[in-house]
Amino acid sequence: MPPTITDKIAHDFKAHCRTQPQDDDEIDAYVHRITRYSDGTVKLRNSNIELMDQDILYHLALGSESHDLQEMFGEVKFVCMGGTPKRMENFAHFIMDEIGYKLPAGTQLQDISAYSYRYSMYKVGPVLCVSHGMGTPSVSILMHEMIKLMYHAKCMDPIFIRIGTCGGIGVEGGTVIITEDALDGQLRNSHEFTILGETVHRPAKLDKKLARELKSLASSDDPYDTIIGKTLCTNDFYEGQGRLDGAFCEFSESDKMTYLEKLRDHGVVNIEMESTIFAALTHHAGIKAAVVCVALLNRLNGDQVNAPKEVMHEWQQRPQILVSRYIRKVLAQHGQLKSLFGHQGSIKSPRRFKLVQQESQAHE
Amino acid sequence: MPPTITDKIAHDFKAHCRTQPQDDDEIDAYVHRITRYSDGTVKLRNSNIELMDQDILYHLALGSESHDLQEMFGEVKFVCMGGTPKRMENFAHFIMDEIGYKLPAGTQLQDISAYSYRYSMYKVGPVLCVSHGMGTPSVSILMHEMIKLMYHAKCMDPIFIRIGTCGGIGVEGGTVIITEDALDGQLRNSHEFTILGETVHRPAKLDKKLARELKSLASSDDPYDTIIGKTLCTNDFYEGQGRLDGAFCEFSESDKMTYLEKLRDHGVVNIEMESTIFAALTHHAGIKAAVVCVALLNRLNGDQVNAPKEVMHEWQQRPQILVSRYIRKVLAQHGQLKSLFGHQGSIKSPRRFKLVQQESQAHE
Repeated sequence: MPPTITDKIAHDFKAHCRTQPQDDDEIDAYVHRITRYSDGTVKLRNSNIELMDQDILYHLALGSESHDLQEMFGEVKFVCMGGTPKRMENFAHFIMDEIGYKLPAGTQLQDISAYSYRYSMYKVGPVLCVSHGMGTPSVSILMHEMIKLMYHAKCMDPIFIRIGTCGGIGVEGGTVIITEDALDGQLRNSHEFTILGETVHRPAKLDKKLARELKSLASSDDPYDTIIGKTLCTNDFYEGQGRLDGAFCEFSESDKMTYLEKLRDHGVVNIEMESTIFAALTHHAGIKAAVVCVALLNRLNGDQVNAPKEVMHEWQQRPQILVSRYIRKVLAQHGQLKSLFGHQGSIKSPRRFKLVQQESQAHE
Repeated sequence: MPPTITDKIAHDFKAHCRTQPQDDDEIDAYVHRITRYSDGTVKLRNSNIELMDQDILYHLALGSESHDLQEMFGEVKFVCMGGTPKRMENFAHFIMDEIGYKLPAGTQLQDISAYSYRYSMYKVGPVLCVSHGMGTPSVSILMHEMIKLMYHAKCMDPIFIRIGTCGGIGVEGGTVIITEDALDGQLRNSHEFTILGETVHRPAKLDKKLARELKSLASSDDPYDTIIGKTLCTNDFYEGQGRLDGAFCEFSESDKMTYLEKLRDHGVVNIEMESTIFAALTHHAGIKAAVVCVALLNRLNGDQVNAPKEVMHEWQQRPQILVSRYIRKVLAQHGQLKSLFGHQGSIKSPRRFKLVQQESQAHE
């Protein structure tokens, strides 16, 4: 059994974390103080971990003693998460091109967490691309292990960004939405946890400065809108989002419309299933975070997603494009984009490369 | 926008479903009446669906007009679900051997939902093997679409079984646990939904007769125990299950032990993350269901799962073995096991088959 924190520390934590909200700045200062070492690397709000012989991150297929996590992940600055393994693999290849990251000759990206059979993880230099599955519990497990990974790897001030899809409220399909506040089913800006049978609320706060910075990177040339607004996080896709087309439906269309209009009047611009836990756990860990989603439909007009596959595919790239602009900007500010581009790649001429491939195939 | 049920029907449903529990038998009779057509096929508690032009089951990559769902799935009798695609693919191959189901020469199992990038689904005659991801929201989405699939395919009285892993409370690693009642974080035998902003509780009831029947199929020769007990369903793996080894821990070891002992005294024998929604939605749909999990550790002794990979692999087969005994028994009762075995397979002699493979490889 792992060693434990003392009752004294537990008591202090409880006093700090379970009482009603204090002043925002006070919370932020407190959280920052307890979540960073003096060199800026991630410190855990759980002193048990450093006392353990080894820490197995089961759902990532990694361990603190089986892997040199600092060597593998120490340079990570951006942790990008999204629902499916496929989307995150695509994003890994996309961001590789965008930041000019070159793999050594004869290598390809590998799913680091393949043997977990749970999540997929791809690493492209300072960018980690991880799938989180659907719903808050799946994200919760991943967040615990990713935050512990940041700690074991001694990462410096990592930034977490969720790249997702959502239903829009009063916005057209294809609109990119940056979450200002994540709300639960009761429209509270918090996530409800049950810990040892007790109900605990933690603020679902995202970094407002980061949200504004992402918004500023939307281009007037983009053939779609990029907006900031409130996001409703639900525990279900059908009844939980007021859809009429689930296996069950015990409300009328007018009930549904009344509800969606109430959401709109409250400032909610989209609905998804992960934002409150993502916001609550990053905030609790003192990690800057943002949620950027693309709307697949306007829920005020219907329930089923009908856009053609190609259109949907293009839409799903939009949050990735915005996030890549941000990553490029930060890397450029730190002079790291140039050094990445400085690496010599393996392909000198894409045209000749293609010809050689074709020639080779012809001589099998 | 899909057509809707009338306010009248909605009102009746509300009166039936949102009021406090009625008599159990009364509920069961009512549910059965509204969830079956006279020929025994699955009827939905949502009249919107039959009025829709098409019903897209997004997360399964299937549609009511794009696929002949009755042709594809009409014979399905057992829907087996588990967390990971890998486990369900393994189970598909295992159950294929167990029920003697033969694939046509030159074919192999295909992941029917591969293009959803969400869940994996394999079909072996009357058995459907589907992954559900982690946590209740992920299961919720799948359940809505699987129940709709049963309806579109006109399946007769399908049985849903979840095959999972869990933490044991006072039982050793490797113990097989059949869930008697699924409890939420507040130890209520129900699942809490938020529908149009309102809190709704639905009973998380599993089929007690099915649980006893599964238990009766445990053999005295099995080198492990198979028990029936209460299952706690949580929304998190770390703090939510009283683990000391998450990214956060704000309670002491003694707090944790007090909590786990309280669970044990309440009759809880295991903790997992899917049972309440699985029980609540199958019960609401009038579908017989069971949850069979293997304990990976005894939580009274620790938090981290330390059993070697081979041991863990063998443990995970145990629920599969029990469920396969049940499926074989039911098929045999209906005279269907024999007919499946009656098919001529492609391999007459495994020894000679292996020799031919080796010969062939040597002559590449």
